Amino acid sequence: MSMQTPAGLAPKAGHDTGDLQDRIAALEAAVEELQERVPDARRVTILVFSGKQDKVLAALLIGTTAAAMGMDVTLFFTFWGINVLKERRAYAGKDLRERMIDFVTPTGATHMGVSQLNLLGAGSRMLQRMMKDKHIVSAQTLLQQAREAGVRLVACSMTMEVMGIRREELVSGIEVAGAASYLVEASRSGCTLFV
Amino acid sequence: MSMQTPAGLAPKAGHDTGDLQDRIAALEAAVEELQERVPDARRVTILVFSGKQDKVLAALLIGTTAAAMGMDVTLFFTFWGINVLKERRAYAGKDLRERMIDFVTPTGATHMGVSQLNLLGAGSRMLQRMMKDKHIVSAQTLLQQAREAGVRLVACSMTMEVMGIRREELVSGIEVAGAASYLVEASRSGCTLFV
Amino acid sequence: MSMQTPAGLAPKAGHDTGDLQDRIAALEAAVEELQERVPDARRVTILVFSGKQDKVLAALLIGTTAAAMGMDVTLFFTFWGINVLKERRAYAGKDLRERMIDFVTPTGATHMGVSQLNLLGAGSRMLQRMMKDKHIVSAQTLLQQAREAGVRLVACSMTMEVMGIRREELVSGIEVAGAASYLVEASRSGCTLFV
Repeated sequence: MSMQTPAGLAPKAGHDTGDLQDRIAALEAAVEELQERVPDARRVTILVFSGKQDKVLAALLIGTTAAAMGMDVTLFFTFWGINVLKERRAYAGKDLRERMIDFVTPTGATHMGVSQLNLLGAGSRMLQRMMKDKHIVSAQTLLQQAREAGVRLVACSMTMEVMGIRREELVSGIEVAGAASYLVEASRSGCTLFV
Repeated sequence: MSMQTPAGLAPKAGHDTGDLQDRIAALEAAVEELQERVPDARRVTILVFSGKQDKVLAALLIGTTAAAMGMDVTLFFTFWGINVLKERRAYAGKDLRERMIDFVTPTGATHMGVSQLNLLGAGSRMLQRMMKDKHIVSAQTLLQQAREAGVRLVACSMTMEVMGIRREELVSGIEVAGAASYLVEASRSGCTLFV
Repeated sequence: MSMQTPAGLAPKAGHDTGDLQDRIAALEAAVEELQERVPDARRVTILVFSGKQDKVLAALLIGTTAAAMGMDVTLFFTFWGINVLKERRAYAGKDLRERMIDFVTPTGATHMGVSQLNLLGAGSRMLQRMMKDKHIVSAQTLLQQAREAGVRLVACSMTMEVMGIRREELVSGIEVAGAASYLVEASRSGCTLFV
């Protein structure tokens, strides 16, 4: 208690004001602690692990819809998901295994398979045609729309190192960061998805 | 400060009460802001993307368990996940591609494959038999139990449009809503899963 | 209002202090309600459903990174994910179907396939070799590191029952708990992932 009212004048009020001060200080500490440790419902962080067309599409649709609703959205591309961010291949300086990984993984958002219903690639083509008929945009277009809508697109630095992907192979406007950076963002987000 | 104590009477207390008022007003603003932006630990929102038996089963088991614990649970079925909600096929008025999608996708919770261990369908049958032996209920039964337990079951409107699924093909008691509706619910939920 | 200042002395201040008390009491109730119902941004709960090497690896990498950042991390292994926790097989007392499940599911973190890029097992070997080259540790090592870093590793009791897995088949330091236990932890966690 930092303050004392003059004795006799308003003792009860004085006592109460001190009491109130204690309760306010306790509330301030509790609110500050809450502000530090609660996630924000207006933040969405999606870990895009899969490189399958349908899953990446779902992640991008959720991301762009959330951004359109005014939410802060981060898409963190890791493992196979990082392939969607590749624009071109760079072979110079890559060792044989990195080139092999290059050869068997897709480049960009147009050559991905689907996770289900993949009858010799028919699922992928069917999905694309039906989406076109219904005027649903492709993963490639959604990636650009997401960027324009202010969605943070982050490529996992460890995945890039393991798969031998160079920064210049990625489409423009992509951040590169590690798992710790993902966790900082995810821990502040109300909605966290692993796709 | 909205209030002034009579000068001379209790100037110090007056000053302090005004001070307290400011701190209380700041706390009220901070608490209101927190109430608006924090997710609720008692809410669970699951995005059921997969149509695989084992994954749908996991989503339904988590959903019904959470509902039994008094939590508010929403299952949002999208992409392949929507097939679990299909009760019957309606061919009338569908174009060829929609009928093809119909032909290759399962109807209802009994004809789904599993995501792993699928030795020519043996995985699916083995899982069902073992679950039966251990008295674990099937996806179909769980879907009904979830509905009865008050779990909100929502079908993604965009998926229905893309796949050419009619409302009358879905089991009863299913809401139809879009991605924005999912995000409103997910942003209020402490636990958000993509299955 | 529980308190009254002596009339005439400082009526206005008295009125205000009572007012303040009401507002503080309302704040205290609101803060207490928030403390009870908000998830904690410093808690991460991952449901490891998949038994695929790459997905388990991602879950373990996120978990150990979060633990290294001082977060409280729980990995709940269910369905196929539980296989990563198996150290040895116990056949005694198992029925034929349980032995069959045993035969077709992997034991431990060294014999898992990958979810994508699995060219007759080449994806799995390629991933392991590239990770070795880049000094990224294996799932088996990460499992041990996670345990040492204080990550809670929980095996789903229902999965163990359905698959006929005995407690003595699991690596040491694993808790066994049900879906309700998972939900209590997930509802307190800011970051919840289904892998």
